[in-house]
Amino acid sequence: MHSIEKLRGVIDREIEKMNFSGRYPPELYIPVEYIMSIGGKRLRPVLALMACRLFSDDISPCIRPAVAIELFHNFTLLHDDIMDKADMRRGKPTVHKKWGENAAILSGDVMVVLSFDLISSARLDILPRLLSVFNRTAIEVCEGQQMDMNFETTPLVDQHSYLEMIKLKTSVLIAASMEIGAIAAGASTQDSGLLYESGLNLGLAFQLQDDVMDLYGDQDKFGKKPGGDILMNKKTILLIKALEMADEKTAKKITDIMEEEQDPETRVSGIKRIFDQLEIQNAANRMANDYFQKALRKLDDTSCKIERKKEFAGFIETVMKRKS
Amino acid sequence: MHSIEKLRGVIDREIEKMNFSGRYPPELYIPVEYIMSIGGKRLRPVLALMACRLFSDDISPCIRPAVAIELFHNFTLLHDDIMDKADMRRGKPTVHKKWGENAAILSGDVMVVLSFDLISSARLDILPRLLSVFNRTAIEVCEGQQMDMNFETTPLVDQHSYLEMIKLKTSVLIAASMEIGAIAAGASTQDSGLLYESGLNLGLAFQLQDDVMDLYGDQDKFGKKPGGDILMNKKTILLIKALEMADEKTAKKITDIMEEEQDPETRVSGIKRIFDQLEIQNAANRMANDYFQKALRKLDDTSCKIERKKEFAGFIETVMKRKS
Repeated sequence: MHSIEKLRGVIDREIEKMNFSGRYPPELYIPVEYIMSIGGKRLRPVLALMACRLFSDDISPCIRPAVAIELFHNFTLLHDDIMDKADMRRGKPTVHKKWGENAAILSGDVMVVLSFDLISSARLDILPRLLSVFNRTAIEVCEGQQMDMNFETTPLVDQHSYLEMIKLKTSVLIAASMEIGAIAAGASTQDSGLLYESGLNLGLAFQLQDDVMDLYGDQDKFGKKPGGDILMNKKTILLIKALEMADEKTAKKITDIMEEEQDPETRVSGIKRIFDQLEIQNAANRMANDYFQKALRKLDDTSCKIERKKEFAGFIETVMKRKS
Repeated sequence: MHSIEKLRGVIDREIEKMNFSGRYPPELYIPVEYIMSIGGKRLRPVLALMACRLFSDDISPCIRPAVAIELFHNFTLLHDDIMDKADMRRGKPTVHKKWGENAAILSGDVMVVLSFDLISSARLDILPRLLSVFNRTAIEVCEGQQMDMNFETTPLVDQHSYLEMIKLKTSVLIAASMEIGAIAAGASTQDSGLLYESGLNLGLAFQLQDDVMDLYGDQDKFGKKPGGDILMNKKTILLIKALEMADEKTAKKITDIMEEEQDPETRVSGIKRIFDQLEIQNAANRMANDYFQKALRKLDDTSCKIERKKEFAGFIETVMKRKS
């Protein structure tokens, strides 16, 4: 069995081989090297390799597509950070803070192209399927990011629209990672489709869990103060559920605090008190868990061997737990 | 024979079919619709279709790749305009002026993805060759744009570096358009390679001509005041050649004006007087013409029928003349 650490090592070595720091002009590639090296857990490429392993012992056809996904993911972080005017990412200054906006735009651009180039190098027998999933997903991720930006200026976002947004912005790339892994292994369209479905649900579960943990997570474990989303006025499943479940008076109290309360601690504690009364944490956790169980069922529906499924399920359970 | 206008119509109809204005979310696609509709001469896709016609009467396999090139080209304009803080493009407000920077970044991003998606839809027998040219070119265009940005803060750029920059920023996409047309027609690698070489020289000729016309062009014909590049402190072949050909005293005079003279008219007329003394216009024109002749020779080396070559040569001569 490949341990997760080993798979991560495979990805990291392939990224190193791309030798960004040795490319010309350095002003273009040093930011790429930087964002790719400041870590992250390589969740998507590891999921791709794990999905490949469900159907085949040979993960080699999946390595470059997996790195393509990681490059594309990091490109979205780079450009999203410009749009969000974020100063920090993974505890380090963001690319546009370090090298300016123009560098961040252009380095992001070359990352998209590099990711397509990696996908394009696949064997001809799997190339059309890989391109089809990858391209559609990349388009959807842009659409999801636009919806997210639209939500910033939308006073009331309903749960359906919110789920659609996080599906596009986040889940489809998780889903594509798993489908691409299956395709690289030569799995049937039936099986690769099931893994895509599984990943879609898994991505929703992960994002909802992230929403919950932003407020209810252990400060020591996550290294950031609870309630960042409330301070940033972000729409999350907690806020959306609360506004849907609250009576008129309570809903008004929520919007009043969100619109008027400037003191960070009073703002977070005020909103949290209402969420607690409405038992929002439980409701959101149940929802995340429902998606997670659905992801497991879709995985179970595939035709691969039972012990492989167990291994995969074990991995995504670890990720889910780490988030809680 | 397909007239140029007909070929342009083929491209425009295919772009219309993409139905940007009907896609969701509109905030993402309306800017795409806008930049694709405010014209431009569709030079690259027409070159692709013309190159395809050199080898085949059936241009249909070339239509979507040609539109991919046009989409990619317009994406570069969109992001370059952000980086250059340009307010106007083709006489209209730029996307970031109209909808803000975030919209311009994200709409540009989705255009790159859409361009790859169009290339990916090609027939399997030509797909790997198309992807290989397109991806390599897209990477080089980003590298060229970075070099161009670097030049803004480089006091002295030599002719070799300048030619390398415009090759990457501009010529490779012209070259790729022609090679992609040939590949779509099923031309041999020998022939498609020759067309790439031809396009590389043609692209250099076009850009050098543009540099000359910025100062020496007919104001009535181009609708803009001569000398924009001098006012913007841009490195052009005129400036670079002048600094290389001038004696020490004259070179100092050039840099003094470029660094100190703030009055637009005095600045342009002062620099122009020196260029005229050094006969820079002739030198640059000769250089552009040398590249153009080389482009014609490479075209002539291909194995296609003589009347087709003549038709192609006639088209690029028209474009070259229009620029002068």
